[in-house]
Amino acid sequence: MDIHAISQTCTRPEFVGTAVLDTIGLVIAAADPALLEKMKLPAPFHSLGLFGSRTGAAGQLTALDDAVKATSTQVLSIEFPRDTKGWGGHGNYVVLGGSSVEDVREAIRMALELTNKYAGELYISQAGHLEFAYSASAGPVLEKAFGAVYGQAFGFMAGSPAPIGLVMADTALKAAPVRLTRYMTPDEGTSHSNEVIAAFSGEAQGTKEAVLQGRQIGLELLISMGSYPKIPGTPYL
Amino acid sequence: MDIHAISQTCTRPEFVGTAVLDTIGLVIAAADPALLEKMKLPAPFHSLGLFGSRTGAAGQLTALDDAVKATSTQVLSIEFPRDTKGWGGHGNYVVLGGSSVEDVREAIRMALELTNKYAGELYISQAGHLEFAYSASAGPVLEKAFGAVYGQAFGFMAGSPAPIGLVMADTALKAAPVRLTRYMTPDEGTSHSNEVIAAFSGEAQGTKEAVLQGRQIGLELLISMGSYPKIPGTPYL
Amino acid sequence: MDIHAISQTCTRPEFVGTAVLDTIGLVIAAADPALLEKMKLPAPFHSLGLFGSRTGAAGQLTALDDAVKATSTQVLSIEFPRDTKGWGGHGNYVVLGGSSVEDVREAIRMALELTNKYAGELYISQAGHLEFAYSASAGPVLEKAFGAVYGQAFGFMAGSPAPIGLVMADTALKAAPVRLTRYMTPDEGTSHSNEVIAAFSGEAQGTKEAVLQGRQIGLELLISMGSYPKIPGTPYL
Repeated sequence: MDIHAISQTCTRPEFVGTAVLDTIGLVIAAADPALLEKMKLPAPFHSLGLFGSRTGAAGQLTALDDAVKATSTQVLSIEFPRDTKGWGGHGNYVVLGGSSVEDVREAIRMALELTNKYAGELYISQAGHLEFAYSASAGPVLEKAFGAVYGQAFGFMAGSPAPIGLVMADTALKAAPVRLTRYMTPDEGTSHSNEVIAAFSGEAQGTKEAVLQGRQIGLELLISMGSYPKIPGTPYL
Repeated sequence: MDIHAISQTCTRPEFVGTAVLDTIGLVIAAADPALLEKMKLPAPFHSLGLFGSRTGAAGQLTALDDAVKATSTQVLSIEFPRDTKGWGGHGNYVVLGGSSVEDVREAIRMALELTNKYAGELYISQAGHLEFAYSASAGPVLEKAFGAVYGQAFGFMAGSPAPIGLVMADTALKAAPVRLTRYMTPDEGTSHSNEVIAAFSGEAQGTKEAVLQGRQIGLELLISMGSYPKIPGTPYL
Repeated sequence: MDIHAISQTCTRPEFVGTAVLDTIGLVIAAADPALLEKMKLPAPFHSLGLFGSRTGAAGQLTALDDAVKATSTQVLSIEFPRDTKGWGGHGNYVVLGGSSVEDVREAIRMALELTNKYAGELYISQAGHLEFAYSASAGPVLEKAFGAVYGQAFGFMAGSPAPIGLVMADTALKAAPVRLTRYMTPDEGTSHSNEVIAAFSGEAQGTKEAVLQGRQIGLELLISMGSYPKIPGTPYL
């Protein structure tokens, strides 16, 4: 088989598109019943939207959050594989459901487009990485993934090696009156990633300020390890 | 200590050989009793055959399956470390037992040789990877590892990032009347790898067709992510 | 934001220093109460010392062991993220507690300095890696991390791919009358790393001999896989 005979422009009906950070979006119009049974989905959809990345999670989930809110779809499962292509963090794998393949396709298309924006706050150096996300109003995806308070502003930060993440979390909590909704470490909540992760909810201005102060100290500590991070996306905060 | 004084041609009695994908095969003629106790093996062997790789699992297990069937040995444990040298999948670590070191040595020797064939269906691009395996008649190793129906044909496929694996599984199940015996995702059954994995049993022609159709759509989707995969072995399907 | 405006010389009070293997040491003088609650620490300290590396665990824990013994601090948590920057092993993430920030700062400072010595026994080839550690007298950190017998000599060895680690463990146990205190595999005790890990306690001369014989066969087997390891630190055994 000559794999180079396969075009990079995919014409399969399952294909929706790709985005930064090795992200791909796919749909299945009517999933096979034997597969649906094994997937144990929490709702009886057979049109599925599939979304996954090798690197990053919070930015993509913020994008999916907006996409689900804007379409007739529902988030069915969120998983965080241990990945980042050799680095210390996660990727993501999300399944959406909808009554029609048009709905899930539109949700996935929108999530891919927004990923190119919301996955912008990723900083990867020779020593470790930092990830940030912010949403002015959390929806069902951020609620399911990180316990975000629905409708409130949402902040996220992950730091690797893990000690940096803990100092970032401490700094953010002292910066503004936000509520810590998720706290994750290598042994608790993560897939054994080398990160401390904190997610919090609160009023918009305070939540953004908490993320920004966490980002500032996180960058200073990461850079103290001897190399400047690369920024694969475009920071938006 | 000068490590370069150590030859690459190992003369230890424990050494059996190596194979593709950073695979090594070893034996212990009579394992230390304190170690045997901690290993909690399901059968009282003290001659152990050890097999492990940094990358890939299904091809190597298909090789081990043939090797165990052909020798007086038994599979004692199968583990899937999260590995692939920075990529999104697994390696493998398998312990065989036998009444004599000659038996386990022969099984490991045969498994290494067959690995160079059966681990041929691995495709690794800049974005992700795909792995396939096929056996005309599953034996005890594939039964233990993936719930394969003993004596039936066996098919395996893993796709990373995970959404590709799910579409491959759906495509395979629709391609032929095969039975899905194992379904794995980052949070279920894998070691948090960034894969969806499907294994199935059935009649030979249908099972092979299912693997081939899964491979075709998997390659198309992986290549849509912007790079062509490298093929470290020699495809055999 | 111009990240290059941030200096590599960190002036934050949280920063203590860095060491080999992407190790960083930090302190928090008075951690935020909401964070402390989520951390579920086993003792009511609010001055925290944080220590973590991308690569390696036993060497750093041996360093922390000496540091905790020499200061008025206590080890609160030890976690082993799945890391090694794409290779088959772990990093580490440790939290110490103390009554004053001066105490934890001194413990972290000392641990960083000793890490540059005790993390010297790491061997990383194209195929896998080996890690060794030895302490003449185990303290609270090695006891908590690996079940080491307090006050006895302590030996540690990890081999990847996993089969090498098992042969190393078998060889060490046959080399001297040591007691196996911890046995870890990809599915048991590790964070799904591609290693077999053994830790043991005993009399000083025998324990060191066990480590040295494990190291010798481990190096021979790793080198048999076709490449010589790099040694990022300075071996001390």
